[in-house]
Amino acid sequence: MSERKLVILTEGHSNPHTAKTGCCVIRYRPEEVVAVLDGTLAGQEVAEYLGVGDGLKFVSRIDDAPDANCLLIGIAPPGGKIPESWRPIIFRAIECGMNVISGLHDFMTDDAEFVAAAQQQGVELIDVRKNDFTSIARRPGFRPECFRVHTVGHDCSIGKMLTAVELTEGLKERGVDAKFCATGQTGIMIEGSGYPMDRVIADFISGAAEQLVLENEHHDVLLIEGQGSLVHPSYSAVTLGILHGSAPHALVLCYEVLRDRVTGVEHVAIPELPEIRRIFEVMANIHQPCEVIGISMNSRRVSEEEAEAERERVAAELDLPVTDVVRFGRDELVDAVIAARQRYLESLELSVE
Amino acid sequence: MSERKLVILTEGHSNPHTAKTGCCVIRYRPEEVVAVLDGTLAGQEVAEYLGVGDGLKFVSRIDDAPDANCLLIGIAPPGGKIPESWRPIIFRAIECGMNVISGLHDFMTDDAEFVAAAQQQGVELIDVRKNDFTSIARRPGFRPECFRVHTVGHDCSIGKMLTAVELTEGLKERGVDAKFCATGQTGIMIEGSGYPMDRVIADFISGAAEQLVLENEHHDVLLIEGQGSLVHPSYSAVTLGILHGSAPHALVLCYEVLRDRVTGVEHVAIPELPEIRRIFEVMANIHQPCEVIGISMNSRRVSEEEAEAERERVAAELDLPVTDVVRFGRDELVDAVIAARQRYLESLELSVE
Repeated sequence: MSERKLVILTEGHSNPHTAKTGCCVIRYRPEEVVAVLDGTLAGQEVAEYLGVGDGLKFVSRIDDAPDANCLLIGIAPPGGKIPESWRPIIFRAIECGMNVISGLHDFMTDDAEFVAAAQQQGVELIDVRKNDFTSIARRPGFRPECFRVHTVGHDCSIGKMLTAVELTEGLKERGVDAKFCATGQTGIMIEGSGYPMDRVIADFISGAAEQLVLENEHHDVLLIEGQGSLVHPSYSAVTLGILHGSAPHALVLCYEVLRDRVTGVEHVAIPELPEIRRIFEVMANIHQPCEVIGISMNSRRVSEEEAEAERERVAAELDLPVTDVVRFGRDELVDAVIAARQRYLESLELSVE
Repeated sequence: MSERKLVILTEGHSNPHTAKTGCCVIRYRPEEVVAVLDGTLAGQEVAEYLGVGDGLKFVSRIDDAPDANCLLIGIAPPGGKIPESWRPIIFRAIECGMNVISGLHDFMTDDAEFVAAAQQQGVELIDVRKNDFTSIARRPGFRPECFRVHTVGHDCSIGKMLTAVELTEGLKERGVDAKFCATGQTGIMIEGSGYPMDRVIADFISGAAEQLVLENEHHDVLLIEGQGSLVHPSYSAVTLGILHGSAPHALVLCYEVLRDRVTGVEHVAIPELPEIRRIFEVMANIHQPCEVIGISMNSRRVSEEEAEAERERVAAELDLPVTDVVRFGRDELVDAVIAARQRYLESLELSVE
């Protein structure tokens, strides 16, 4: 993965929400990104529109990035399908000898025209969500010293992946052998490994989460990315499958300030944070102890002052450390993980004695 | 579906557990079953081994059932794959012009030899679990007068489908317009409709459950079959997807007496019934009121006396009606559904006023 030279495609959708995948790859793999393609914004600063990508300017054509060797589709379009208007861009990338990476439900490798073009040019089409995983969770017992932290949330797209990545980096800075475990297409694009849980056959979700832990349990701390929410009526199954398959010892609860309606089903209200915490702890504690150890607040929609006030209010209400890892830094949550791991290791020793 | 003349294949596995699918089809569609095929028991009484199928004897070959027009694979083999030894039986059925119905994860229609044979004979291979469902749940709001009852359980294979079918029949006997909504392969084979929830792509489980309700909401009461359990670490995702997608008003909690270890992961204990009830009510109540209204007890492993004592104990502990629908009849639970529906309809009227 280290030799990727990426063009990120955000054509016509260069905002942090729709281009979430592109933004996250730019944020965490900046050294791999050589250009961002949006013809509607050609020549303008990427950072101005996406909030990441300092120094990058939008380009209008594949040919404007001659050094690139890979096109990464950085947008999740409504409906999950590749729009007609992007097809010429993808074909041009293939013609230029570039691999193409996509995280959409609609697979390039199921499209006869893309497949034929890629074969002719000898390039690879990588559908990150494609999988044929068919193993049932068996609850085998993981390496006891492997401490598992799972980032969960009150809704979609509020920072669960970002929090897991930030905590992994923060722990590594402190000398802890930590590993980010990706469960969605963007995380997999960043990490180069993981399972696309929302695309696994229903019977095998927990099995895939379990497999993800088994492949990484030699690390001392795993930061397992959450998906959706137990209170999201469309995606709660995926959320629970990851929670039960990965069997975490601790949860970090992520939320966005002012978000009070469920994404995609806005007529449904999101419960209050204490209720969200209770629901996750009920479901996480069925077969082993697990508690929420900190709150990751996404405060992008409020001022710094408002964010500070909210932080204090929530910390007092839940009696937990709270931070916005982007705005205020990740230290408090890294401290919380280290302390929780210490308590866990001590309880292990006690149970051995 | 009414003209099916079925041979049920239970070769080498004629017991109520492994041949659960076959047993349920014999129990609820006896008029369609012309023979049960198990060469190891040829000539013996089916009822003696399967507990259902009065008057039927096992046959040893497809040719012993000349009137049949359809072979139904009535067993879930370990691993979900079609054993080598069954292939000649399936080929012979195809040669005899019979359709073949299978509920296995391993699809006949992905097997080139089966497909070629079926094409040559002009017969149909029906993989009940095969689907390409890709719609996300949207929580559209169902017809308010449609009262939804969902059968849930403390584990797999303890009577959730059977309870839903029995309650449907009991309600119909009382003149209620009730409909059984199948969510698994056996239920679909009995009812001729439904969705194989455990085989849907994870992102779309709730969407499939929602679709099942939308297709049936013109009925007054839906009995929605549950799968797995919220406390089953392998399958809880499927369980929650159906619960949130179908948005029931009432739950009937099914359990088997003496069952205290999770099926398939026997080193994990099943929580006690009051805890199971609490967990289901927490997850069912996130976006609307829903409560457990009765207990469906499967007492096959204990004597009638022990079953009576257990029934009294559980009824007192949970303050709910309890019955074994096979042993003691379904009346108490049918009463409970009718009463709960009445309370629900009255609450609707109040909210309209």
